[in-house]
Amino acid sequence: MKIEGKEYRTIWFENKVVKIIDQTKLPHQFIIKELKTVKDAINAIKNMEVRGAPLIGGTAAYGMVLAILENNDLEFIKKSSKELIQSRPTAINLQWAVHRMNNKLSMINSNDLFDVALKEAKEICDEDVKFCENIGLNGLKIIEEIYNKKKDTVNILTHCNAGWLATINWGTATSPIYHAHKKGIPVHVWVDETRPRNQGANLTSYELNEEEIPNTIIADNTGGILMQRGEVDMCIVGTDRTLSTGDVCNKIGTYLKALAAHDNNVPFYVALPSSTIDWNIKDYKDIPIEERNAEELSHIEGKDDQGNVKKILIYPNKSKAKNLAFDVTPAKYVTGLITEKGICEASTKGLKDLFNK
Amino acid sequence: MKIEGKEYRTIWFENKVVKIIDQTKLPHQFIIKELKTVKDAINAIKNMEVRGAPLIGGTAAYGMVLAILENNDLEFIKKSSKELIQSRPTAINLQWAVHRMNNKLSMINSNDLFDVALKEAKEICDEDVKFCENIGLNGLKIIEEIYNKKKDTVNILTHCNAGWLATINWGTATSPIYHAHKKGIPVHVWVDETRPRNQGANLTSYELNEEEIPNTIIADNTGGILMQRGEVDMCIVGTDRTLSTGDVCNKIGTYLKALAAHDNNVPFYVALPSSTIDWNIKDYKDIPIEERNAEELSHIEGKDDQGNVKKILIYPNKSKAKNLAFDVTPAKYVTGLITEKGICEASTKGLKDLFNK
Repeated sequence: MKIEGKEYRTIWFENKVVKIIDQTKLPHQFIIKELKTVKDAINAIKNMEVRGAPLIGGTAAYGMVLAILENNDLEFIKKSSKELIQSRPTAINLQWAVHRMNNKLSMINSNDLFDVALKEAKEICDEDVKFCENIGLNGLKIIEEIYNKKKDTVNILTHCNAGWLATINWGTATSPIYHAHKKGIPVHVWVDETRPRNQGANLTSYELNEEEIPNTIIADNTGGILMQRGEVDMCIVGTDRTLSTGDVCNKIGTYLKALAAHDNNVPFYVALPSSTIDWNIKDYKDIPIEERNAEELSHIEGKDDQGNVKKILIYPNKSKAKNLAFDVTPAKYVTGLITEKGICEASTKGLKDLFNK
Repeated sequence: MKIEGKEYRTIWFENKVVKIIDQTKLPHQFIIKELKTVKDAINAIKNMEVRGAPLIGGTAAYGMVLAILENNDLEFIKKSSKELIQSRPTAINLQWAVHRMNNKLSMINSNDLFDVALKEAKEICDEDVKFCENIGLNGLKIIEEIYNKKKDTVNILTHCNAGWLATINWGTATSPIYHAHKKGIPVHVWVDETRPRNQGANLTSYELNEEEIPNTIIADNTGGILMQRGEVDMCIVGTDRTLSTGDVCNKIGTYLKALAAHDNNVPFYVALPSSTIDWNIKDYKDIPIEERNAEELSHIEGKDDQGNVKKILIYPNKSKAKNLAFDVTPAKYVTGLITEKGICEASTKGLKDLFNK
């Protein structure tokens, strides 16, 4: 999608380095960063220079390519795989991508490792783009249906960033929105700020602005009253891990919006590529929920009146904070899952039928 | 209550001026500000140097005293009353306090206006302190009951600041907590940050720190998963206006926490002095919901690494924002109302029985 009128993907390989958009610098600075080693890739994931389940998967795949470039030795590749998987705990795509790379690599001889790894990483990324495009086309039908009834701007609420910046292109939750916009359906997006890291404001609003899609940032507290007032026609969010039961793990606060949607009969959809489905864990309490540094809450970055980027402390000196990164929305509050293969009920039956499992 | 070990109220009259703690400067600076004219009082309310329904009421009462000091003329007093009432739209205590002052003043001759006004304003404040103390004693019983069952630290979640800084002393939602702490019951408070103005972090956590009550700031998004995990024993919040139906208007985001509490069988209490009850409006949709400047969202103040207070822009340049200040929690999600007269069901019957209406 576009930034300042120019088309980008979030990650690409060029002259033996992996290039990413450093998302910790957005929206105040647009910086393309080079990853040269697997350690660079691990740090980019850990420090959230790349984030979003599908993009984390893509970065892990390219991380494997960088590992092979550094050292063709099988022990090093194995160690790198392990470290990549451990770089963040919640998004399932991370292990999915690393396992897929290793499966491919286990079948070939060591001379071909680099070429095969690069081809597979590219394929993982291209596949994600295709999946996100299909998610968009499937979700578009829901937006069109609302528009055909309402004959007026469709108001869509989203939480965090499941936009193209969270994937390789198109996004998951935003893909139906981009497709609707391209088709000429008037849409307006309520963007949850998404504390503590403000990915809604910093990334979702930023990328919607760049594609000229009308959007308004709101505090995470605001969705409830907007729904009470009938100012939200539907919600679409992404997910870091969806269980085969239909329970949805996503950015902290998603659950609260789902409850409000349920209370006000607002449809609540989750958009995801099938790589985000966890077919193993059955009880959502077994999902590891990442706890991040409290400084992400107590400090914030922005621009002062001279245009310089500053980090400031916004909490009392003596206060402490707890920073849980995800929560789980029980399947009963999810109207449907929008996947690359179609839309299904958020349930074991819905998912099994759609994916022939 | 205490700040740096010294006892304060939030507002007092001294040498013909009204003194307040400028709450827009907390937690980074503790500044006592003098209000010398009714216009100062109006601005203090508008700019949220004083905030919280009971304290707004107290400030309006003292604002009337300042008006009389300035100009004894009835027309001026009438005009000042009107401007005070219009200074913020949602908290019901504002009109309640001004009407009470005017009722008192209408019965006396003009020579006594100042003395009577000052006495009445002091009485409104003293009464609020007494009410808040009683709210504390009534709410204490609920905390004690949980403690007697659990035999371990009682975890209480609160939203925004309904602490002593929102009242004259003790607070509403925090009064039961202060009383429990004084009685030796171990309590720990989950403090919702409360975007966009962060009154939870800036004021509630600050005042709990100063009274040495263990507390942890969380993003507004976090309450849901803490309740899913059983880490919240009860919620207590304040209110800016509670209808006789039991519907509770309070800081934006309260509704979302009430939904999560309901979904996880966590008791959800609202603490209020009876001055906060609106006996007239029957439909919550008729409550005026204040919309404030979007800059409260897009900009934030804090301390840089040199300790200087800075305001920075945290949103993309091109983004716009919407800043609704309150939402409404339907009575069915409220376990009970803790008032100065006792605890009652959040319903017309509950309130009418308790207040003999």
